[in-house]
Amino acid sequence: MHKIGKTILFDEPPVIIGNAGVVGKKEGEGPLAKDFDAIFEDTTLGQTSYELAESAMLHDAIIRGLTSAGISAKDVDFVLSGDLLDQCMGSAFAIKDLEIASIGLFGACSTMALSLTVGSMLVSAGAKNVVCATSSHFCSSERQFRFPLEYGGQRPPSSQWTVTGAGSAIVSNKGKGIKIKAIQVGTITDLGVTDANNMGAAMAPAATRTIGDFLTDTKTKPSDYDLIVTGDLGYTGSELLYQLMKKEYNIDLKPYHNDCGKMIYNLKEQDVNSGGSGCGCGASVLCSHIIKNMKKGRLKKVLFVATGALMSPTSSKQGNSIPGIAHAVLLEV
Amino acid sequence: MHKIGKTILFDEPPVIIGNAGVVGKKEGEGPLAKDFDAIFEDTTLGQTSYELAESAMLHDAIIRGLTSAGISAKDVDFVLSGDLLDQCMGSAFAIKDLEIASIGLFGACSTMALSLTVGSMLVSAGAKNVVCATSSHFCSSERQFRFPLEYGGQRPPSSQWTVTGAGSAIVSNKGKGIKIKAIQVGTITDLGVTDANNMGAAMAPAATRTIGDFLTDTKTKPSDYDLIVTGDLGYTGSELLYQLMKKEYNIDLKPYHNDCGKMIYNLKEQDVNSGGSGCGCGASVLCSHIIKNMKKGRLKKVLFVATGALMSPTSSKQGNSIPGIAHAVLLEV
Repeated sequence: MHKIGKTILFDEPPVIIGNAGVVGKKEGEGPLAKDFDAIFEDTTLGQTSYELAESAMLHDAIIRGLTSAGISAKDVDFVLSGDLLDQCMGSAFAIKDLEIASIGLFGACSTMALSLTVGSMLVSAGAKNVVCATSSHFCSSERQFRFPLEYGGQRPPSSQWTVTGAGSAIVSNKGKGIKIKAIQVGTITDLGVTDANNMGAAMAPAATRTIGDFLTDTKTKPSDYDLIVTGDLGYTGSELLYQLMKKEYNIDLKPYHNDCGKMIYNLKEQDVNSGGSGCGCGASVLCSHIIKNMKKGRLKKVLFVATGALMSPTSSKQGNSIPGIAHAVLLEV
Repeated sequence: MHKIGKTILFDEPPVIIGNAGVVGKKEGEGPLAKDFDAIFEDTTLGQTSYELAESAMLHDAIIRGLTSAGISAKDVDFVLSGDLLDQCMGSAFAIKDLEIASIGLFGACSTMALSLTVGSMLVSAGAKNVVCATSSHFCSSERQFRFPLEYGGQRPPSSQWTVTGAGSAIVSNKGKGIKIKAIQVGTITDLGVTDANNMGAAMAPAATRTIGDFLTDTKTKPSDYDLIVTGDLGYTGSELLYQLMKKEYNIDLKPYHNDCGKMIYNLKEQDVNSGGSGCGCGASVLCSHIIKNMKKGRLKKVLFVATGALMSPTSSKQGNSIPGIAHAVLLEV
């Protein structure tokens, strides 16, 4: 690999040899239903808590990913995973019985892109197969970050709906599949947003910076890509991204951009305010819908940029800002 | 790099070109006081919350590490950091203004070893300089994991005292310093321990496995090392480690082993029950005392193994077990 500006380009691109995206009932009623590898009508997955349900869903996504790659856990060098739960318990209980060397990540909702950026560099360093994965669950997130579900708190229009979903991608040093041609590990960007009900606004500046820097480093323009897709900016965050891209880089991004948080739900019918969010949003959409469309030849060059809002209930209640981060992964057929 | 069993050996070993370990008042009254790079008598560091105090301390450790390496933030490819606070807020606020591409990690108390294992592989992949860092703070940990400080809860003898401390190591592809000859990313090990007041017992099985596998893979025995040092098993966990090493590998580890949680406090005078714990325990001791002794030639070959207890207050209250993990780093002069 070699570096141009902040972007890492792979001389021998790692390959996604397997992938799976699984979701809950609500996501299975949205426009991408036919592309998901599994839809869990019972979002408890038969577990005794929402937290263990999230772990069971992530475990399922990893097993499906390995199966689609035609390899087993013993063929894997490292699993890279993280999630939104305190101390990343969603991942810990998902992978604890897999017997794979485990690298715990924290990138908030950017985790799918973070795991792909780090995982692809580890493959570049010499690893043969790595699992990149993450998850989120509406019910475990709501009670941790907001209110008990039973309280029925009202949500402002800028708020987003945490996706119940998980995704896994098996990245390898050889084999057939989508190639990871380049990546960019994001730099934390903090414009002082403090509204925990407006994650899109907190994350849009980081997305702007990473997309802008990536285009600059690679001397490309948005029209060179079939799709530039963010993880979970939602409607509010996407509009802010367009404004910032125009202002900071004089680039009209809108015609080439979509957001997994806009794609996963039917806005008019599913009552999700500004769209989907959570680690599982970008992960489930990338690892099912997007990669399937790439394999079918409908998309050939996709820049996946997942953003994270670096906040905790404690940091927000203490009045701190919400720093954002965005990691980028260039996928090509 | 190449892999033997679960161990990664570096053909061109990455080098620790800079390092710093900083601590709070209590740690500054312990036996390692003279080796720390800074002792903060005021453990609030002038901040408005314990959480921001932890971030300020970690920020300080990173800046001191960079200074000792003679490089600045702009020379760094990635900073790898994580901590015990919900959503790793200690790290987010420590590094948000450094303008370095950021890889968030979660490994509980194993984070210093996790950051060194991943960081050294990224250097092996082509990165020039990476910062590996972590922190913990007694006051932010107590109120998050246990009780408000004012409550004055009683502690059982197996409980440990969270170290107020931070450490940073600058790992580079060239230069003078301690070499990272090999690493092992740990595999989660869960023997079903559920007592959140006995972290040593939850982590000892993982330490046993990683140390045992490392010795097996490298065909070495404990007497080949000047020191095999764990991060924060404390007195209880260390005794369990000796028992398990004897039982599982028929190895008498005790004469060659020490634990940062035993080294950092004076057990008889400092009322810390089973010793120190927390990400900052292994980090501050490794990045000051141990590396300084290696530079002075008193230690030449050290196996640093930091362990993590993968639990959250939620997972423990829900009655789940506490899976453990241990990552290993082989340091040589």
